[in-house]
Amino acid sequence: MSQERVVGVDLGGTKIALGVLDGPNILLKRKVETQAERGPDAIIADIVSIAQGMVSELGGTVGALGIGVPGQIEKGTGSVIFAPNLHWRDVPLKERLEKALNAHATVTNDVKAITYGEFKHGAGVGTSDMVCIFVGTGIGGGIVLGGELLQGSTGSAGEVGHLTIVSGGRKCTCPGSGCFEAYAGGWGIGARTREAVQAQPDLGAVIAGFAQAVNEEISAEHLSKAFHQGDAFAKKLVAETADYLAAGIVSVVNMLNPEMVVLGGGVLDGIPELLELVVRQVPEKALGSATRSLKIVPATLKGDAGIVGAGALAASNKSKL
Amino acid sequence: MSQERVVGVDLGGTKIALGVLDGPNILLKRKVETQAERGPDAIIADIVSIAQGMVSELGGTVGALGIGVPGQIEKGTGSVIFAPNLHWRDVPLKERLEKALNAHATVTNDVKAITYGEFKHGAGVGTSDMVCIFVGTGIGGGIVLGGELLQGSTGSAGEVGHLTIVSGGRKCTCPGSGCFEAYAGGWGIGARTREAVQAQPDLGAVIAGFAQAVNEEISAEHLSKAFHQGDAFAKKLVAETADYLAAGIVSVVNMLNPEMVVLGGGVLDGIPELLELVVRQVPEKALGSATRSLKIVPATLKGDAGIVGAGALAASNKSKL
Repeated sequence: MSQERVVGVDLGGTKIALGVLDGPNILLKRKVETQAERGPDAIIADIVSIAQGMVSELGGTVGALGIGVPGQIEKGTGSVIFAPNLHWRDVPLKERLEKALNAHATVTNDVKAITYGEFKHGAGVGTSDMVCIFVGTGIGGGIVLGGELLQGSTGSAGEVGHLTIVSGGRKCTCPGSGCFEAYAGGWGIGARTREAVQAQPDLGAVIAGFAQAVNEEISAEHLSKAFHQGDAFAKKLVAETADYLAAGIVSVVNMLNPEMVVLGGGVLDGIPELLELVVRQVPEKALGSATRSLKIVPATLKGDAGIVGAGALAASNKSKL
Repeated sequence: MSQERVVGVDLGGTKIALGVLDGPNILLKRKVETQAERGPDAIIADIVSIAQGMVSELGGTVGALGIGVPGQIEKGTGSVIFAPNLHWRDVPLKERLEKALNAHATVTNDVKAITYGEFKHGAGVGTSDMVCIFVGTGIGGGIVLGGELLQGSTGSAGEVGHLTIVSGGRKCTCPGSGCFEAYAGGWGIGARTREAVQAQPDLGAVIAGFAQAVNEEISAEHLSKAFHQGDAFAKKLVAETADYLAAGIVSVVNMLNPEMVVLGGGVLDGIPELLELVVRQVPEKALGSATRSLKIVPATLKGDAGIVGAGALAASNKSKL
């Protein structure tokens, strides 16, 4: 019998990254442009042919393929309900992949895939209850409890970016207000920074200067630059951001009592000092009973987490069939 | 072989309630005073002798005993780490009960017991992902995922009362601030009401009158009385309370995507209108993906939930041995 290979796919709005996996190791990797305007048929055909091509190059057949999609996935069917960056609605992705590959396929949300990657092969190795929080433009997350990725009743569990941390506060991009990401996600940090600079232009001059230099609207990136130059106003805004981050993490910790919180994403890569501030604050503010053995650590898999996680999840799901 | 009976125990700071169970039905029930000052030995002896007495009255032996304790329980050992109302510290309750009864014993936190009762025999029958939120003096809760009570890595999962809903807000009784219960729990509502009446004594006269009549400090109860008399200021404070309740519930719903949220506790019994306000608000503020099939319902088991839940949990745990 030929060797059954595991393929992991990270389907993004601009790029598709595919890898043939051996546990945490990527034996072979490909990256192609998504060109979402081609529609689901062409994209699915690409994924299938690249996966089969890579596997036959290595020898063997596709045994299981896992794919992380930036959108909502229907629990049970593995259909993509809505993926705004791909302009997909109601695409029966699991069914179509399985038919084309004649192999098991697991379709999951992209952040859930990364979470499972960190759990199985990254920062979370050895834990069984772990929450990942990724602070990028928004805040995404995933929850692993008892070694299993939490799906929720309709597949949308893990939306930590929409914890209410300021009741009645800033309007979110979701129907709610006061959400975690409206304060501590990249877009929220940018909006808070703009408002603060507008309110106190003298104090905010250094931040504003970074934005003017590139003729852009003030964003979290300009805050980061000013912060790393030692600007006092930027320091204050970063400290406030740490307070908001701690507020959201305290909620997660008090509610779920995980062993580990894994933090990642562009904002934390840009201002790694936030991690230190949060690691100090959370044990001071959360319940003692929930933090006795809590670890708060950075994500470790970086760019390949989506591939590794999607593949690992598919392998795990296949083994349960 | 004689019939193996299931006993449920609700150990409170002032009363111990015990029942012999047949599923949701209580075949026989006893209630005695705790008299916590007697210490753990006497209380454990009481529980054992009453349980054995009831069971022999019905015929049979104790097969499994479940007990809900108002405190922190050590995961794995079933020891009581700390139960302030009982003045207990490090009491190996599970071990002592099992030795004395020669039967399986399950020791759990009292709110977790009630949650499991609602799940197995109350409002949550038929669901598998359910969160209970009990709004009493504080706010307690319990989480059932995939049909199992979530314990967390060190046994303290479910502390929904300490979700941060106002970052940097009101000091809590825990090390944190801005907690759910500091705004929407009985003590938090009382404190908010006192401050509001102090700030606007003319508008708050009706509420203040109810407190003065019984020579008490203004509390949630006086707010409730004024509200039910149609007082406008009380109405405003109740509406604000509903906003805070919705904020905490939105956090739970977005993070865990449960099928059902069960609401109970003295504050909701006192102001049942809060339930309606919350049921209306949550679907407007939470993510659509998380509320597609969400139900928010009142708890149904009332006073016996602790007995029924603790017993049901013990029976379930025993069946897995």
